[in-house]
Amino acid sequence: MPIVTLLTDFGSADSYVGEVKAVLLSQSPLATLVDITHHVPAGNVRAAAYLFERSWKHFPPGTVHLVVVDPDVGTERAALVLGMQDHFFVGPDNGVFSSILAQPAVLATTLPIPKDASPTFHGRDVFGPAAATLANRGWWPELGTRLTRPGVRIEVRTPERDRQGWVGEVVYVDHFGNLVTNLQPQHLSPGCVVKVRDAPIATVNTYGEVKPGALLAYVGSGGTVEIAVRGGSAAQVLRAEVGQRIRIEQT
Amino acid sequence: MPIVTLLTDFGSADSYVGEVKAVLLSQSPLATLVDITHHVPAGNVRAAAYLFERSWKHFPPGTVHLVVVDPDVGTERAALVLGMQDHFFVGPDNGVFSSILAQPAVLATTLPIPKDASPTFHGRDVFGPAAATLANRGWWPELGTRLTRPGVRIEVRTPERDRQGWVGEVVYVDHFGNLVTNLQPQHLSPGCVVKVRDAPIATVNTYGEVKPGALLAYVGSGGTVEIAVRGGSAAQVLRAEVGQRIRIEQT
Amino acid sequence: MPIVTLLTDFGSADSYVGEVKAVLLSQSPLATLVDITHHVPAGNVRAAAYLFERSWKHFPPGTVHLVVVDPDVGTERAALVLGMQDHFFVGPDNGVFSSILAQPAVLATTLPIPKDASPTFHGRDVFGPAAATLANRGWWPELGTRLTRPGVRIEVRTPERDRQGWVGEVVYVDHFGNLVTNLQPQHLSPGCVVKVRDAPIATVNTYGEVKPGALLAYVGSGGTVEIAVRGGSAAQVLRAEVGQRIRIEQT
Repeated sequence: MPIVTLLTDFGSADSYVGEVKAVLLSQSPLATLVDITHHVPAGNVRAAAYLFERSWKHFPPGTVHLVVVDPDVGTERAALVLGMQDHFFVGPDNGVFSSILAQPAVLATTLPIPKDASPTFHGRDVFGPAAATLANRGWWPELGTRLTRPGVRIEVRTPERDRQGWVGEVVYVDHFGNLVTNLQPQHLSPGCVVKVRDAPIATVNTYGEVKPGALLAYVGSGGTVEIAVRGGSAAQVLRAEVGQRIRIEQT
Repeated sequence: MPIVTLLTDFGSADSYVGEVKAVLLSQSPLATLVDITHHVPAGNVRAAAYLFERSWKHFPPGTVHLVVVDPDVGTERAALVLGMQDHFFVGPDNGVFSSILAQPAVLATTLPIPKDASPTFHGRDVFGPAAATLANRGWWPELGTRLTRPGVRIEVRTPERDRQGWVGEVVYVDHFGNLVTNLQPQHLSPGCVVKVRDAPIATVNTYGEVKPGALLAYVGSGGTVEIAVRGGSAAQVLRAEVGQRIRIEQT
Repeated sequence: MPIVTLLTDFGSADSYVGEVKAVLLSQSPLATLVDITHHVPAGNVRAAAYLFERSWKHFPPGTVHLVVVDPDVGTERAALVLGMQDHFFVGPDNGVFSSILAQPAVLATTLPIPKDASPTFHGRDVFGPAAATLANRGWWPELGTRLTRPGVRIEVRTPERDRQGWVGEVVYVDHFGNLVTNLQPQHLSPGCVVKVRDAPIATVNTYGEVKPGALLAYVGSGGTVEIAVRGGSAAQVLRAEVGQRIRIEQT
């Protein structure tokens, strides 16, 4: 009963996800398929990398993770199969697997592209079949060619220290309008103040500790500091998006 | 092969649903997961209660129903596990299970909150593990603490009788723009007329009985009176939303 | 482990899809359910027929395909069960299965409508139970009444030849804004030029071969000519929709 997760920008309006699942179940009939999301903004590798990184660890060993946000499909970019901690990862070499490639223990190979693969749909014709084989057999030596150069990694900015404290930024905005930052729980020292454009925001444990409509900062479920509005959208209220600078000041 | 249903306001753009499923399948690998919806408007307990109530009964005995629309996550609100008619229900004590709590035969317990649970994501860290255990073992005595007070129930208004007939209201608007009311089939006596703001609406069996663009009233698939526009949206045409008064008049 | 695919216009905001799945799993507990899409525009039989036709062939023999885009639900339109090439097809007789009905080898029957079926939700009360039975037992003789007239087929226009080359049209617009046409790969002779409203478009293999923001024509993953914008939406850039004329000119 191997699990195959799917994370794409294919949307849910067309038949693309269904066609990938058809290939997966044709070749691995006992696989359990789990959608992470298919609503990554088109071609947004950075958002895909964030969602991938926070979700894959919750799955059990043996899981195959298919991540297809692939604006350069059909070009020279490599098709990757990675293995680490008894998890398997399949997708384009464009940075979606940055966090995995940063680990020393990762096994990395590149898949051959079959001649009859659609040059615009490697999810169905290249990555899908590889994921099905991994679900059936686990890692296998003849899978592809060992990757001899480093894989593509996107730059991840970490918070910087200045005189008043820490300066981080928004790395993801979720569908509630919550702002996920790259600031860590340890940056929240007692008596500190979280600020967006000089406005201080109360640091609490959960939404219910502030009044409806009020802003709050807290350690989110992905493990970093988030900013929300109780019963509303912090992205709207603060007119903030990815890249917005967030400060934590000692007082 | 136990079934676990999921009904949330987590949306489909983020990894939240995927993370809950990771927990469910890690702990109950043979469970069959069924999404009811993840598009309940954020924090809308009333809409969640409606969708829950009309859908759970179609599932077979042994099904576990996970309902997480939980604006007060992390506060003192209780985390519930209910059992009734060999179905199991897991979610916050905020009214989503009003219809179940109204039954005399319900078993009700409250779950302990583990210290390491994210205070903003009980769906993954509290309710998900409980649902997986129910899927594996069914009801178990040490599950939680017996609920000794009544659970939270949201007020459900029933139609009222007046001189001309019955006065009900819209309780849900679906994605087609159909208006679901709280009026029952027995309120539709022969010769009656359904009215929205004094405009009479033809009562028929199905959409095809009126002309394209025309309004119709009928007994909907949830068992109550609905108002629709053939090939269009009654919510738009009538500018109606939840709470809109609907009359059935005897003529 | 039979597969049942679902393709509807039910959306994902309500409990309709969940209720159909409840019926399917109640009657066929071992079925693997695969969503193709539930976001066909309401009542758009032509879009449903396109998505159905391109996706069903990727599934293995024995798969049951449930297609419910059914604006005339509850009227005299027939409820179909078709069998072909060891695949089964269940849905309304309104043209969604045009491509199957065009085959000589298809088996076609009409289902009886149970008296207690909701006249507005045959997906749950008529087609769902039939799909579950097909998943359990395959084709069975007493399934329904042999269809003695031709099934309903929607007109599919094919490209026409004129002096300069071929004239086709857009048949589907996907969520990326890519324009899928009815022009075939063989219409792309060497040296030809694809034109939309007299503007020539480069013919390439994949997105990465043109500059970001540029238009391109290519053979899409559904097997016909498509027009896209790299990193953008051709539908927006060209203000094109279904029916837009597309020319391929010899030069």
